[in-house]
Amino acid sequence: MPVKNAMLEVVRHVDSIIEELDDSEIDAMMDAIQNSERIFLIGAGRSGLAAKAFAMRLVQLGLTAYVIGEVVTPAMTKDDLLIAVSGSGATISVVSAAKTAKSVGSRVLAVTSYPDSDLGRISDYVVVVHGRTKIDIEKDHLKHQIEGRHSSLNPLGTLFEDTVMIFFDGIIAGLMTKLGKGEIDLKKRHATFE
Amino acid sequence: MPVKNAMLEVVRHVDSIIEELDDSEIDAMMDAIQNSERIFLIGAGRSGLAAKAFAMRLVQLGLTAYVIGEVVTPAMTKDDLLIAVSGSGATISVVSAAKTAKSVGSRVLAVTSYPDSDLGRISDYVVVVHGRTKIDIEKDHLKHQIEGRHSSLNPLGTLFEDTVMIFFDGIIAGLMTKLGKGEIDLKKRHATFE
Amino acid sequence: MPVKNAMLEVVRHVDSIIEELDDSEIDAMMDAIQNSERIFLIGAGRSGLAAKAFAMRLVQLGLTAYVIGEVVTPAMTKDDLLIAVSGSGATISVVSAAKTAKSVGSRVLAVTSYPDSDLGRISDYVVVVHGRTKIDIEKDHLKHQIEGRHSSLNPLGTLFEDTVMIFFDGIIAGLMTKLGKGEIDLKKRHATFE
Amino acid sequence: MPVKNAMLEVVRHVDSIIEELDDSEIDAMMDAIQNSERIFLIGAGRSGLAAKAFAMRLVQLGLTAYVIGEVVTPAMTKDDLLIAVSGSGATISVVSAAKTAKSVGSRVLAVTSYPDSDLGRISDYVVVVHGRTKIDIEKDHLKHQIEGRHSSLNPLGTLFEDTVMIFFDGIIAGLMTKLGKGEIDLKKRHATFE
Repeated sequence: MPVKNAMLEVVRHVDSIIEELDDSEIDAMMDAIQNSERIFLIGAGRSGLAAKAFAMRLVQLGLTAYVIGEVVTPAMTKDDLLIAVSGSGATISVVSAAKTAKSVGSRVLAVTSYPDSDLGRISDYVVVVHGRTKIDIEKDHLKHQIEGRHSSLNPLGTLFEDTVMIFFDGIIAGLMTKLGKGEIDLKKRHATFE
Repeated sequence: MPVKNAMLEVVRHVDSIIEELDDSEIDAMMDAIQNSERIFLIGAGRSGLAAKAFAMRLVQLGLTAYVIGEVVTPAMTKDDLLIAVSGSGATISVVSAAKTAKSVGSRVLAVTSYPDSDLGRISDYVVVVHGRTKIDIEKDHLKHQIEGRHSSLNPLGTLFEDTVMIFFDGIIAGLMTKLGKGEIDLKKRHATFE
Repeated sequence: MPVKNAMLEVVRHVDSIIEELDDSEIDAMMDAIQNSERIFLIGAGRSGLAAKAFAMRLVQLGLTAYVIGEVVTPAMTKDDLLIAVSGSGATISVVSAAKTAKSVGSRVLAVTSYPDSDLGRISDYVVVVHGRTKIDIEKDHLKHQIEGRHSSLNPLGTLFEDTVMIFFDGIIAGLMTKLGKGEIDLKKRHATFE
Repeated sequence: MPVKNAMLEVVRHVDSIIEELDDSEIDAMMDAIQNSERIFLIGAGRSGLAAKAFAMRLVQLGLTAYVIGEVVTPAMTKDDLLIAVSGSGATISVVSAAKTAKSVGSRVLAVTSYPDSDLGRISDYVVVVHGRTKIDIEKDHLKHQIEGRHSSLNPLGTLFEDTVMIFFDGIIAGLMTKLGKGEIDLKKRHATFE
């Protein structure tokens, strides 16, 4: 059945990514998050939705997080971290945001399949998450929406996005361990309001 | 390492869900999507982000999809389908939207861990996706955000949301097969604009 | 010409509202904003868009603002202020959010045409902005979207929303004066980054 | 009182714009809307919120409208119209979207203070709405958010945005007249669901 086969393909892919993920890159990412005053996120299309899902959890952990482009997002400073998600590392709006963040002194962490991309090269930290096996030409997200060119319908785009979603949930679990936050603390916190 | 362990837990969970998913429920869902004029989606919090990721792909397949609450969403009619995502099946805004959709004659499909929930009972179709192992009291999503009660930080919420995300991508693959759309068609479509 | 006549009607309405606005309510609102740690905003439909436009300006003034329902919105505390916008004062999601905010100890400021509404009665501060001349039954915003019942197409809804938008811009000008922020400061701030 | 003075300034400005608005531009805009299969909208920052408020009303009138960048927005075709809102006519994301829309054969209507801008020059229709009295350098909206450079805090930006909001409401009133839709029709429509 194609539905289950496609799901299995995602599962197998995430499984292989777990093997490949570099422990030192993960540690650097968690340190960068903990050592930043505020975490800013950017991603286009479905990578942007994964970034939003991550932002929601960071806020629930008690950290301050913002998504670039939302109405309440303040200016970045040198104490902030921008987490930029782009499979190809070439999405124009994401690369442009990363450059601007660098120019105001903020640090940038790239989550990408291509550490040698424009995004990877200007970032202070890179976490390599394979998934996008070729860099196709979808650099301008809004342009592609208007034209109806969706290379991201391609399973490869899906693999990157789903893997990043699960990777971000792993980071949340890691931060909960480091911060000593668990279900007990959460239940206590619940009690206050009940 | 907690990060990788948490990712493995998600992978194992999705693996087990693939076994459990009911083929006839999946077929009914794909038929319902193909036989509806327009697909409407609703979900709260991270379930809402999974719904949005799915809506984006449906539109890329050439279908018409809307997310309840967005500015461009039109009124539903009897020819439309509402896909309502709620792990507990008890989220107030989602159950309320499902009731309203029924009252204007639309069909409702629930994606939930609890077929016997309020949402499950009023829906025309139910796809059971396990993940939420207890129905906790997070019925009012905005209330929980204001109060800071996030039972969804609990891994169980994460498991449901990540599984639904991957399940929806499986449905897209299934629809591509049924509609005979593949990478070749997409490349042709690309060619037109290049 | 109907286009210009409708615009003139809005202008005349805002003009009359400027006369009616209560100076002490305005002063109380500006004090409440300045004395709160963070400003939270909520509104449904086009009132929600006016709330977002205001949130954007508050952030640009250097204040911390959040919109209820966005992914990055944290839990409210007793040091925070919720500004709740509802012409009728009866919009379910807005009244519900106001109640929750009160229950965690936050203060609530209502911007409404009806100080005696559910919203008005539970709020700590009320700013009366006329515009909605009858309380119609649009209590459940998402329900109305699904059903296609848009009493807000009625000029009365428009008058309230447009007036609130301009009123919020007036408050921004008032805060700029109180905070001593002007174009000169902004130009200085610009210079830093150029 | 600065609050009321600022509100009066907006009212005076809109008043003068009503005088200046070119009837033939307005007629061309309403014809373009009526002769297009679907209406797409784009604007950055608060101009984007005005575009969203307009999209909501167009949908309530029974037209099909989309906002560029939202998850459900389909590809544009030659039968569609893009309404692009930019005071300066130079906002990068808006100009870029307009170019892409032209390249797939769609028509573009610019709402801008500068008909001779990049946006104005490539558009099929232009409606001039004064408000932005100088073209400042805020071409890249996300860049400005990250940097904290908000020339739009400047009253001039506010004047354009508020005027466009009211202008769009005027266009809705004009379309209601042309389409013969009024409160009676709306009440009938309400009755169906009550």
